[in-house]
Amino acid sequence: MAKTTQVSPLAPETFPDIPPIAGVRAATRACGVRYKGRTDVLLVALDDDTQVAGVFTRSLTASAPVDWCRKSLPGGVANGLIVNSGNANAFTGRLGEDAVEQVVEAVADRLACRPSRVFAASTGVIGEPLNFKAITDNLEALAGDLAPGKWHEAAKAIMTTDTFPKGAVKEAQVNGVKVTVAGIAKGSGMIAPDMATMLAYVFTDANIPAPVLQGILAPVCDRTFNSITVDSDTSTSDTCMLFATGAAGNAAAFSGPDDPALADFRAKLEAVMLDLAHQIVKDGEGATKFVEITVTGAENDRAAKRIALSIANSPLVKTAIAGEDANWGRIVMAVGKAGERAERDRLNIAIGGITIAANGLAVDGYDEAPVTAHMQSPEINVAVDVGVGNGRATVWTCDLTHGYISINADYRS
Amino acid sequence: MAKTTQVSPLAPETFPDIPPIAGVRAATRACGVRYKGRTDVLLVALDDDTQVAGVFTRSLTASAPVDWCRKSLPGGVANGLIVNSGNANAFTGRLGEDAVEQVVEAVADRLACRPSRVFAASTGVIGEPLNFKAITDNLEALAGDLAPGKWHEAAKAIMTTDTFPKGAVKEAQVNGVKVTVAGIAKGSGMIAPDMATMLAYVFTDANIPAPVLQGILAPVCDRTFNSITVDSDTSTSDTCMLFATGAAGNAAAFSGPDDPALADFRAKLEAVMLDLAHQIVKDGEGATKFVEITVTGAENDRAAKRIALSIANSPLVKTAIAGEDANWGRIVMAVGKAGERAERDRLNIAIGGITIAANGLAVDGYDEAPVTAHMQSPEINVAVDVGVGNGRATVWTCDLTHGYISINADYRS
Repeated sequence: MAKTTQVSPLAPETFPDIPPIAGVRAATRACGVRYKGRTDVLLVALDDDTQVAGVFTRSLTASAPVDWCRKSLPGGVANGLIVNSGNANAFTGRLGEDAVEQVVEAVADRLACRPSRVFAASTGVIGEPLNFKAITDNLEALAGDLAPGKWHEAAKAIMTTDTFPKGAVKEAQVNGVKVTVAGIAKGSGMIAPDMATMLAYVFTDANIPAPVLQGILAPVCDRTFNSITVDSDTSTSDTCMLFATGAAGNAAAFSGPDDPALADFRAKLEAVMLDLAHQIVKDGEGATKFVEITVTGAENDRAAKRIALSIANSPLVKTAIAGEDANWGRIVMAVGKAGERAERDRLNIAIGGITIAANGLAVDGYDEAPVTAHMQSPEINVAVDVGVGNGRATVWTCDLTHGYISINADYRS
Repeated sequence: MAKTTQVSPLAPETFPDIPPIAGVRAATRACGVRYKGRTDVLLVALDDDTQVAGVFTRSLTASAPVDWCRKSLPGGVANGLIVNSGNANAFTGRLGEDAVEQVVEAVADRLACRPSRVFAASTGVIGEPLNFKAITDNLEALAGDLAPGKWHEAAKAIMTTDTFPKGAVKEAQVNGVKVTVAGIAKGSGMIAPDMATMLAYVFTDANIPAPVLQGILAPVCDRTFNSITVDSDTSTSDTCMLFATGAAGNAAAFSGPDDPALADFRAKLEAVMLDLAHQIVKDGEGATKFVEITVTGAENDRAAKRIALSIANSPLVKTAIAGEDANWGRIVMAVGKAGERAERDRLNIAIGGITIAANGLAVDGYDEAPVTAHMQSPEINVAVDVGVGNGRATVWTCDLTHGYISINADYRS
């Protein structure tokens, strides 16, 4: 059921201008897996030795395609990617595994590669058997349409309750060679760490071997997709994959993921993934505010992140922000329930850069006017120092509004 | 700010008929701590050797009165209780500690007891200094009004966003003597374990020493107040206290909290506390459905409770229930994100007693009609078996509706 929701007020004005990446071709098609009148299958073909890394949901009820990808990832090479929207192929048991195999083998046939080099994802309704024939019957047509640079179409085909397609791109230098890093993502609800994206695919022409790629991807994921939350609900299908075709031809003798030669690549990859992660928050179901929450002074970075997420997931904080109310009492409450050390009498809270509570007390006569103006803007900044140590973390979320209830109280019916 | 919200559709028809308890007198008054035109302070006087037990919030930003009660509890004796609504006296630093001392010492003067035998609580807005003079200036009048049996008035004076006062009562037998167990509670939002009540006070004329009383109270709390959630947000003020005046005069040589002579008392106490806990859920902000979630087959009881709370706190499950949609895919998701062992291919889910998923698959052609009818009723039952072991737990929650957003997006302003 494609919803006729209005585009999020926080959406970027346009989809970015992303150049083709050598070694990556894509095609999309309206296959009628579940939705009518829109594309719902994405096929990507990747040149021969494309290296691959991936991070998947930590849900214990992961979908059948997530299980498949996890099994194939150690091979380190990808030649194909097939994604459908409308049905998550999760909680579908043996039928679900069969469906993935049918689809993946058909794609492998078309692309003349081993099935273990084809990665898959499904996103949409949980618990209904996937009508895989809708996909396999359309593979010939999809394969015939494969072409470079179809980023916008690709981002659209994987949308579910998203109100806009999400893409991002950066250029980087690796050993003196210019490479491109481009990604698409989808996600709007059921968004929380661990692996918050629902789906994100990043492609590069850089020449980087899979083990190094994996070592780069995981920590960047933690600081980007795993640092956002819309509603604290973790999907069964969350997948973030990074494909490197190597077509740029840079020298690739790296000491490991932390090799200084990869510093610019890592920075640009993080910029692309952070951009996509922010777009997911900005498309949060019912969102009217984009909220950045930074916690400092925690026992360590992990504690800071847990406190930040406790604030970001608090329905009372999120509704206060929806109501444009600088209700820092609710922030105090969320710090207190996080279960991490915080010095109540050294707590500082700033909203929009204005300190409104210091050393555990409301700042006497602080200027409410700029705080009120900030609360009325679409991007809200909350900074909390818990006065214990040097741990810090930043996470991003959106507000909780009537729109979220409207979207989710009648999603399936 | 007293809100003029309509009474919850899930409210009981009337406040129960609760007899006086010998040794307990109460008075309430409109002191203008924050609200206008309603009572906002409750004073309770307890006869000389009243034994006391308590369980408090695990929030690390607990309120000043919570700190005070924790410090006084080891004394085991209570002569007074003073509670105000409208201001939580939390995150008020040194000022907050002073305010508690001023109030408690004034009450101790009136009741001619030591300050350490006066317990206190404050509930309402966080982070604003408590206008304690509004309380102390009215203590003479309050003391003059002390009388037995004022349960309904007491329950009303401690309300904040509650839409109805909450009370419950049972009779029990201890060593052949009839005793009464009666309680009042308040809570509607910012409700989650640990210590979910916000405030609950249970009184009995049973003769039970404080250490035994404490040993009884804590586990019962875990199965009642700590097994409910409205919005996953834990308050800074949560307090549950149990006062035993001993006026019933039963023999009191107990071996400990598990003494068989106390079996009936324990059962009736649990019934009273469960009744109050359910009333808090039924007064959950915006609630239109009361939801019982039972998880069986978990690794142990603790794991079962964690899974049950993951379901109960999921915004997507709660909005589906608001939409009267038996969307068990979202239940699967919530099981998966709980982080406890679950056998995906042995998962069973029943709604309203009808099994709709078995062994990890939708039940083919199950009868949707009775499930739909159940979803339209005000009390929803969800049962999940995760197929691992013998752990089980039941928790209670409400749905997430537009009402919750309306109440919380403009609470303070």
